[in-house]
Amino acid sequence: MGAENQQERLTQLGWVLGFVDGEGCFSIGFVRQPCRPQRRGYKTGYQVSHEFAVTQGAKSVSCLHELVRFFGVGGVLPNRRYDNHKEHLYRYVVRRRADLIDTIVPFFKAYPLHSSKRRDFEKFAHCVEMIGEGLHLTSDGLAVIAEVVETMNRQKPRAELLRILRGHTPEVQDTGS
Amino acid sequence: MGAENQQERLTQLGWVLGFVDGEGCFSIGFVRQPCRPQRRGYKTGYQVSHEFAVTQGAKSVSCLHELVRFFGVGGVLPNRRYDNHKEHLYRYVVRRRADLIDTIVPFFKAYPLHSSKRRDFEKFAHCVEMIGEGLHLTSDGLAVIAEVVETMNRQKPRAELLRILRGHTPEVQDTGS
Repeated sequence: MGAENQQERLTQLGWVLGFVDGEGCFSIGFVRQPCRPQRRGYKTGYQVSHEFAVTQGAKSVSCLHELVRFFGVGGVLPNRRYDNHKEHLYRYVVRRRADLIDTIVPFFKAYPLHSSKRRDFEKFAHCVEMIGEGLHLTSDGLAVIAEVVETMNRQKPRAELLRILRGHTPEVQDTGS
Repeated sequence: MGAENQQERLTQLGWVLGFVDGEGCFSIGFVRQPCRPQRRGYKTGYQVSHEFAVTQGAKSVSCLHELVRFFGVGGVLPNRRYDNHKEHLYRYVVRRRADLIDTIVPFFKAYPLHSSKRRDFEKFAHCVEMIGEGLHLTSDGLAVIAEVVETMNRQKPRAELLRILRGHTPEVQDTGS
């Protein structure tokens, strides 16, 4: 019985890795918050967010609940984007910094992904660690984080990130174009 | 050492399941072959194909080679479709009937997928088994297979399948529309 549980745990662990290799996404976001300069964490004019997410159609939402049970953190949310999919989408999402630092990051460090998402994860982990140390609260620290994020996923336009870099890092000048 | 190998094998097996839950596709195709009625397998005017495939971008092609090593059948091919992806795509592909019947189908029967692809696999396995028994060589058998395929994946237009059904199954009449 103990051996069977152990076997199940290992195939489950492998399944989580493979599923995240296929469907997972590690992302760092920047949201302009120019109107709240007095609030801690908003002094740079930007709020930094961190998210580990896995998306599935409604028919496979049980896979996302499996991730909730496996990690013991995060939750399942309906996706706000509709695109032209034929079914509703759901996302397993972990956003809480403590959950990322204590659970998600250590897991994928101990059991590396097999796909190119491994490199995205490593950059994500690096950013989350810098954020954990408060680097995002200064303009220079935020620029360092933004430079790492620029090389991740490559799915978002970079205009905003460049604006952050140009606005906050004295060394980087807009040379005109 | 034996125990370590066993652990690795189980996490690897789980990884394959999770990765296929995320990126795998089981499909049955119908190609019109009206000009070769003399050839065995083309008497119905249609050639039936079966494929298990997993697609990845060039950066993660190593994951596909992992599948080749794991299953011991199939191969990695460049994708002929380009879409608007920013990198070349590759596919792990198993098309040989014997490889599907002896290796792929038994594996996913022994270790079921967790996502809704499980149902697509079950229909795929059913079709491959019918094809293995030669049902696709008669018009009635082909219609039975086409009816199962109609409920799979739901990604292809059904016009051709309906044409098969209408053309070959005496019971099904075009009632006009």
